[in-house]
Amino acid sequence: MTGELRVIPLHGLPELEEDDDLARLIVEAASAVGGLAEEDVLVVAQKAVSKVEGRVVHLAGVEVSERARELAGDADPRRIEVILAEAREVVRARSPLVIAETRHGFVCASAGVDASNAKGPDTLVLLPVDPDASAAALRTRIGELSGVDVGVIVSDSFGRAWRLGTTDVALGVAGTPAILDLDGQLDSVGYELHATQIAVADEIAGAAQLVMGKTDGIPAAIVRGLRLEGEGSGSDLVMPLERDLFR
Amino acid sequence: MTGELRVIPLHGLPELEEDDDLARLIVEAASAVGGLAEEDVLVVAQKAVSKVEGRVVHLAGVEVSERARELAGDADPRRIEVILAEAREVVRARSPLVIAETRHGFVCASAGVDASNAKGPDTLVLLPVDPDASAAALRTRIGELSGVDVGVIVSDSFGRAWRLGTTDVALGVAGTPAILDLDGQLDSVGYELHATQIAVADEIAGAAQLVMGKTDGIPAAIVRGLRLEGEGSGSDLVMPLERDLFR
Repeated sequence: MTGELRVIPLHGLPELEEDDDLARLIVEAASAVGGLAEEDVLVVAQKAVSKVEGRVVHLAGVEVSERARELAGDADPRRIEVILAEAREVVRARSPLVIAETRHGFVCASAGVDASNAKGPDTLVLLPVDPDASAAALRTRIGELSGVDVGVIVSDSFGRAWRLGTTDVALGVAGTPAILDLDGQLDSVGYELHATQIAVADEIAGAAQLVMGKTDGIPAAIVRGLRLEGEGSGSDLVMPLERDLFR
Repeated sequence: MTGELRVIPLHGLPELEEDDDLARLIVEAASAVGGLAEEDVLVVAQKAVSKVEGRVVHLAGVEVSERARELAGDADPRRIEVILAEAREVVRARSPLVIAETRHGFVCASAGVDASNAKGPDTLVLLPVDPDASAAALRTRIGELSGVDVGVIVSDSFGRAWRLGTTDVALGVAGTPAILDLDGQLDSVGYELHATQIAVADEIAGAAQLVMGKTDGIPAAIVRGLRLEGEGSGSDLVMPLERDLFR
């Protein structure tokens, strides 16, 4: 029987700098709310991870290409240049909006490049190079520090086609499934569910966003009470090109 | 300071029939977990709402058009016919998959028409005619029965472009905001956030899905601890056509 889920924000983390021990800061913040527990899933904002990984670019040093200038319109072409450098492919562009596929395969605004919440108006934060590796490293380090084996999700806010507003989704996943596959399971009245795949890691990331907010400076939350088995990755959530009806 | 969020599944509801008093069944199920409280948001699965509203179609009586036969391929053309009747526009079709815009403006698989969990293999469940009205009616009736003013979200599982798996989203909303608009608010280091709109109602629906499951027959969950102000609607979450880069 499914029980109750708790989503617990972790307050009090400092403004993050490159090479900060984010796992230690999280374990310390978690101790204020009773500590981490086995089977917890820890959701960490991508921006926090990117900052400690040094994925920060200063606009001052950026040289602008002709293509960036064309796409920029009235926007800062240096920002567009940084986006293009992060993109495998531009999916749609309507100045100053650029929807791009990142090298990871994520399709999102600005190839995940973000200015808000950064260290200043002339500083951009990029996605982690390998969000699954970021999640796995946090999981390992948290295990070392606390002795507790948690799942970790590195989350970011993505827009969606056809729907307004962003929801947080999982870019990196470790120690918890990304997709719950109900292929062939029976529903409550005994009929087979066909090919139902639930993006649980995205729903967990979205649930955490509800307590992390956007202006509160809360970079992490604990999701407790899930009973999910297995392990997935952020790439499990990327639609394979051959099944993609929208590219 | 943001507090903890709780997501509480409501167990023990019976298999639903047309004209059942769903609000009463929910209030009774909630009493087993301590009852509803002010500021709770109640998430109710669309299928539960559709069943009590009689939005059920039997395949036996469906006459098939030429277009449905063409789109169906190897699938049951009667099912495609029902989908076409619910659709304002077919956005993509690759037999047997039909992505359509519903009359509400939602873009989703099969125009929201669903077979699983229905009353039999030859029965389809359609989306409510007006999910916002369904949410508002549940809210009013729950207020009458319990004296508690809750928010209500009618949820459904939608696929997404570019990402694998479904997440639950809000089709109908009453007494709680759909979008949290951070236009012009300052982030934690004092920089203005530009045009950040968070689809909180979709994230709440997704959080509820994590406890409602797909095979458990749990048609509703309480989300407690949100501190959201304002009221929205499901149509707030539909991307206006003029801003839509993907149609």
